[in-house]
Amino acid sequence: MKIALAQINTTIGDLDENTRKIKEFIDRAKKENAEIVVFPEMTITGYPALDLWYKKSLVNKNKEKLNEISQYSKGIYTIVGFEDEKEGRLFNALAVVKEGKVLFIQHKSLLPTYDVFDEARYFKQAESIGIFEINGKKFGLQVCEDLWDDDYKVKVTKIQKDLGAEFIINLSASPYYAGKEYVRDNLLRKRALENNIPVIYCNLVGAADDVIFDGRSLVCNEKGDIVFRGKSFTEEIYFINTSIIKNQHIPLITIKEEEIFNALVLGARDYVRKIGFSKVCLGLSGGIDSALTASIASEALGKENVLGVLMPSKFSSDHSISDAKLLAENLGIKYVIMTIEPIVEENRRLYKNVFGDYKNKVTDENLQARERGKILMQISNDSGTLVLSTGNKTELAVGYCTLYGDMCGGLSIISDVDKLEVYALARYYNKIKGKDIIPKGSLEKAPSAELSPGQKDEDNLPPYKLLVPIVNHYIEENLSVDEMTKLGYDGDLVKRVIKMVDKAEYKRRQAAPGIKITQKAFGIGRKFTIINRFEEEK
Amino acid sequence: MKIALAQINTTIGDLDENTRKIKEFIDRAKKENAEIVVFPEMTITGYPALDLWYKKSLVNKNKEKLNEISQYSKGIYTIVGFEDEKEGRLFNALAVVKEGKVLFIQHKSLLPTYDVFDEARYFKQAESIGIFEINGKKFGLQVCEDLWDDDYKVKVTKIQKDLGAEFIINLSASPYYAGKEYVRDNLLRKRALENNIPVIYCNLVGAADDVIFDGRSLVCNEKGDIVFRGKSFTEEIYFINTSIIKNQHIPLITIKEEEIFNALVLGARDYVRKIGFSKVCLGLSGGIDSALTASIASEALGKENVLGVLMPSKFSSDHSISDAKLLAENLGIKYVIMTIEPIVEENRRLYKNVFGDYKNKVTDENLQARERGKILMQISNDSGTLVLSTGNKTELAVGYCTLYGDMCGGLSIISDVDKLEVYALARYYNKIKGKDIIPKGSLEKAPSAELSPGQKDEDNLPPYKLLVPIVNHYIEENLSVDEMTKLGYDGDLVKRVIKMVDKAEYKRRQAAPGIKITQKAFGIGRKFTIINRFEEEK
Repeated sequence: MKIALAQINTTIGDLDENTRKIKEFIDRAKKENAEIVVFPEMTITGYPALDLWYKKSLVNKNKEKLNEISQYSKGIYTIVGFEDEKEGRLFNALAVVKEGKVLFIQHKSLLPTYDVFDEARYFKQAESIGIFEINGKKFGLQVCEDLWDDDYKVKVTKIQKDLGAEFIINLSASPYYAGKEYVRDNLLRKRALENNIPVIYCNLVGAADDVIFDGRSLVCNEKGDIVFRGKSFTEEIYFINTSIIKNQHIPLITIKEEEIFNALVLGARDYVRKIGFSKVCLGLSGGIDSALTASIASEALGKENVLGVLMPSKFSSDHSISDAKLLAENLGIKYVIMTIEPIVEENRRLYKNVFGDYKNKVTDENLQARERGKILMQISNDSGTLVLSTGNKTELAVGYCTLYGDMCGGLSIISDVDKLEVYALARYYNKIKGKDIIPKGSLEKAPSAELSPGQKDEDNLPPYKLLVPIVNHYIEENLSVDEMTKLGYDGDLVKRVIKMVDKAEYKRRQAAPGIKITQKAFGIGRKFTIINRFEEEK
Repeated sequence: MKIALAQINTTIGDLDENTRKIKEFIDRAKKENAEIVVFPEMTITGYPALDLWYKKSLVNKNKEKLNEISQYSKGIYTIVGFEDEKEGRLFNALAVVKEGKVLFIQHKSLLPTYDVFDEARYFKQAESIGIFEINGKKFGLQVCEDLWDDDYKVKVTKIQKDLGAEFIINLSASPYYAGKEYVRDNLLRKRALENNIPVIYCNLVGAADDVIFDGRSLVCNEKGDIVFRGKSFTEEIYFINTSIIKNQHIPLITIKEEEIFNALVLGARDYVRKIGFSKVCLGLSGGIDSALTASIASEALGKENVLGVLMPSKFSSDHSISDAKLLAENLGIKYVIMTIEPIVEENRRLYKNVFGDYKNKVTDENLQARERGKILMQISNDSGTLVLSTGNKTELAVGYCTLYGDMCGGLSIISDVDKLEVYALARYYNKIKGKDIIPKGSLEKAPSAELSPGQKDEDNLPPYKLLVPIVNHYIEENLSVDEMTKLGYDGDLVKRVIKMVDKAEYKRRQAAPGIKITQKAFGIGRKFTIINRFEEEK
């Protein structure tokens, strides 16, 4: 039996385009004589559609589209994700359709509510779990979390196996983070072995605001061997002959920087296009963060669609300007130079006339950052380009960034990439390009915001080689002061860093969306109040 | 039997201060010889603590505090909300403590996941529901949503009644919106009548980021009469003698503008103080939105803590400047005048040198708004005052506001108040003050952003008397185009407005926190993706 896995990229709310694409992939599956074609979770509405899922008009249109797809499925079984509604209750569901008929519906049983997931907000649990027979073979059909049953009482796969299922088919929208593929591998192997059943897993690909889906559909046989691996970050159709399920295990090999770089390229390209933009602009400071952001943007959108804006002030060093120019030339992107000094000077004068001298050194630093943000937004407003914010995760964590200044932007490509990983990705990029696209100067000089004379990041912050791991332990692993002290970090330093992170929550509340590449990104998957007086004592 | 209802204002994460306050109210209850003192939901951690609830260090400290409270409860039964943990699972819980002992624990059964609630993210459901006897009387003790069982299978009140409970005591954190008191009245009356049992309801008061809790604790007898009503928006202790439960129904009387005004005053005061500020600044344009915001801020924080900033440009009319000055004088707040024209002019020159003439009229309008935002943030950074954003709900809905411009701020007091309600509140304020604090000019002139010559809001937007109800039907009631057409609105106008609302999602993602006063506010209770290509067809 030949089964097509249509690892497609859907768009939230674009039911017409999603349906058009589903039909295109049905055609491709039929051309290769597949008997079944499988799509990712919530194929018709896109995932996650969030409060759109509440709209009656969306639910109704999604049912019409399901009907349209069933009409179109001539000579092939189509298994597609959709939003079902029964007596006012909503379900995350899949349907098997063919020849104009909806043959079988399975609702999702396990509704995730952790990290970026919020499904209990919308959906009720399945009231029954069944299996469905196609051409003499019995399938346990399930949706995403139904496979991840370790922390739930209901064991969907076991129930389906007990009902006689010979294969599990899972329609998924499993978000990416670096290393997630190992987690999925282990999960499929565990579930297959536990239940002595092959698992066929079709995952979504593409960007959805704060998260990206990486595809990488999988097939695991009942002995726990992964016998098929789909590609990452790309829309594809794969044909699985049930005979391959007897094959040997294909080992998992990933190169961390390659993977993250590709994730960010997909994330940037897909987000920018899905919100209807093609061109972007960003400030080029000569530093490593803006250099990496510009490089990813050029790869994602084409160099002709990226505008670099150099906005030097009296604190900008000569090498910063020359490094920024060199980067733009190496990438082949356009750039403009707009000196902010006269405007900032006018601003300082106005302020001094009314309030006298600054009481706070940071006032003037923020002023400059905001002047730059304003200029970028001026360009954006007048030419319809999207502004890219260039801050990294470490900065955003400790609040070493200016709200309405360098935080301005419609997308923040590297806001989930820590400062050390920024360097690693920059070196990786130069390596794959075979030359120093990102200038040596940007890579080698001490990081600086250049907002006051001779300023270096490490005058204000702990050294990055300490700061980065502490921030990551705190954000990604939720470690306490005590636990970090046991790992060998200085308790006072840890407390200082945690305090900085907690205090900066108000800035992050107003930050641009980013691209999740770690287990815990800032954004919708991390929910802290701004009113928060909790302090760990040790 | 005398029961004390301690309707207190807790602070998220401030376990020390919350515990200190709990002890203070235990003392006050004992002084009046109460046998029981009841506190609101999650008293020790504050509500909602969101991802703080995941922290082991918070859970542990909250258990220590529970122990400390139980030691302190000498000669009185204290019923307090806390976070319980059992084998790694977390529960929203209440405990009855006395003389150093935890006598009874009840976990919450019904976990809300709609609007601003997210409890399935953190907590598991109660595995058992019991009752507890105090001084010969049997109590069904429950947490907030446990009383709101209409949409759930588990009926907590019925189970407790069947177990022999003579009274229900409910510890609540029920957020405010205008009209919520009628909903609560009906709920208590319904639940009491259904189960033939009196309900004693203790609700939280205070601000928690996007929501405020209004207090208004209630007692309803088994005949469905509300026999006690606590005050709104204020911390208080009430003493309920079980004999009052035989009293007559106290009718509910509220005056809409009075209630909303008081809600906003509490929300502004409590938020600003809980995040550690005392002073605020805001731009005064001479318009009605900034006038109302300044008035509420003055009431909330004291006139000496509010700074008005007049930032005229060449498009500002004389009456705008004079109305803004008059408002500041009427309120008795300080104000400064900072003409933005020279800076904006410098900015226009720089832009023109590089890019030539504007292609887009809106570029220069946004530029001016951002210049003002930047100046306010400069004041904020240098003097430690919080910037108040002054936009109303209708503007924020349709995106008639500038990101990083007038949207700058740490709090947006009226972002859930529609434009027509803004006028009503302004008139209410003048009425209670007995004079035109908010100048007649601000109330009577046609609304204008004054960002281009002779500009009026209604040149860019539909008339407010149509726009406001369409936006409210769409946001608060989730009505479709079809449903609004049936109400008599023009279909094309409705579609135009909906499109504006949907398109402005990216701006709202980066908006300042607001104060929820309607059933559906922008902020954490409304979750839409920025990638959203859904369009209603009719």
